[in-house]
Amino acid sequence: MSETKPIVLKIGGSVITDKSGELAARTEAINRISEEIAKANVKKLAIIHGGGSFGHPTAQKYGIKEGLREETQKVGFAETHHVMTVLNGLLMDSLVWHNIPAVSLAPSGCVITENGRIKSFDDTILKTYLNMGFTPVLYGDPTLDDKLGFTVLSGDQLVSHLAIRLTASRIVIGVDTDGIYSADPKIDKNAKLYARLSLDELGRIKERLGKSHSPDVTGGMLGKITELFPAVERKIQVIILNAGKPNRLYRALKGEEVEGTIIEKE
Amino acid sequence: MSETKPIVLKIGGSVITDKSGELAARTEAINRISEEIAKANVKKLAIIHGGGSFGHPTAQKYGIKEGLREETQKVGFAETHHVMTVLNGLLMDSLVWHNIPAVSLAPSGCVITENGRIKSFDDTILKTYLNMGFTPVLYGDPTLDDKLGFTVLSGDQLVSHLAIRLTASRIVIGVDTDGIYSADPKIDKNAKLYARLSLDELGRIKERLGKSHSPDVTGGMLGKITELFPAVERKIQVIILNAGKPNRLYRALKGEEVEGTIIEKE
Repeated sequence: MSETKPIVLKIGGSVITDKSGELAARTEAINRISEEIAKANVKKLAIIHGGGSFGHPTAQKYGIKEGLREETQKVGFAETHHVMTVLNGLLMDSLVWHNIPAVSLAPSGCVITENGRIKSFDDTILKTYLNMGFTPVLYGDPTLDDKLGFTVLSGDQLVSHLAIRLTASRIVIGVDTDGIYSADPKIDKNAKLYARLSLDELGRIKERLGKSHSPDVTGGMLGKITELFPAVERKIQVIILNAGKPNRLYRALKGEEVEGTIIEKE
Repeated sequence: MSETKPIVLKIGGSVITDKSGELAARTEAINRISEEIAKANVKKLAIIHGGGSFGHPTAQKYGIKEGLREETQKVGFAETHHVMTVLNGLLMDSLVWHNIPAVSLAPSGCVITENGRIKSFDDTILKTYLNMGFTPVLYGDPTLDDKLGFTVLSGDQLVSHLAIRLTASRIVIGVDTDGIYSADPKIDKNAKLYARLSLDELGRIKERLGKSHSPDVTGGMLGKITELFPAVERKIQVIILNAGKPNRLYRALKGEEVEGTIIEKE
């Protein structure tokens, strides 16, 4: 059983929170997603979620990503982590309620970055949870940084990093659009959804993608895509789908066909 | 500044929760205690809190302390950790609100025990937080165990362990009685409060102390005292006081005289 390759699931902050609000959780979406995860019953699953209207506005308010410059930011760091634990708590509550043995692991407590990039991450405990049948749940979180004092680690960076470390079979990314488009579908009505992209194709369209419009201290869709390259390079398949629409996440976790963008090396 | 020896503060679950209820937090006590901690303005402070009516009943319901025996316990482990994060969240919210740069560190994510005793605990990140002026906050939590599969790690075991690892100047323990008595003051009206105990005296009275009456999977006052021996052996002074009464915690953190029991090696 410990030979099974895990799936790494990212749940975007835009799906489980209302990014136009502040500290505004979408509890219905959280419950539906938990139900879909429970129903899919994946043998080995690690979950990472974003900050949405919890982590991002708070981190931005105090300039946490840019690093430690003044004493007053420390309470801001504490507050950013705290609001992330609140959002995480809502998801954990729902996961446990759906009988998923989910255990939260805060990156602020186990990751050290260097200029914003993961430098050390002891994943011994995470791997043990996974091999025992638990579902570790991580999230975008402020972290200590060897150069900056501290910074913000995005859930997106964690996804690729973990998928590689855990030799994941697949990465499933749930966002609030149907996948990757030729243009921003929120602006351009003629934007075309890509069903499949090779790494080369992804590289070519990367620069054409706009950034998201809500405050996202960790880079929006462009950031997401940039982070995926190292995992796809290692032949880990990625699927980006709309987790705001019922059953898509469920189908992807089950390995069934579903609307979205598949990214593969070749 | 990094030369300053830290104070390790334990806040008993009986102080911040109502142990006769279930998931019953004493929010007024939490806020008063946060205010006292903020006012005391200790340079280096690590906080550990107990589980009270959050962690204990849930851990007991699923037999988490006794280890992994059946699959269904895994959700119980997840639930026990989750309810502890809820209690921790209430304290964190109040600490951050009082401008304390407090960062929670869940033992379930950084400690591995062996037959219930701490076997590995990488405190690199904790020490960095402390040296940077943050206030790490830990708590009694279920942990992975090399022999039992998993178990429950008491806040009390953490207190001594951390105080030794951090070469703390003092341990301050806030409980719901005035200190250590010659008998259980909740039963025996003639119970006498000890103002000062040597390690030898503590050893002699240890066996006479009764266990607490509410479900406490980690041992009540007897367990607390047993855990303190290794720290007192290393000449770390301990003060046990009533954190349910205003200003006692504040005075102890300031190093002022206060009603309670002081325990010293000789």
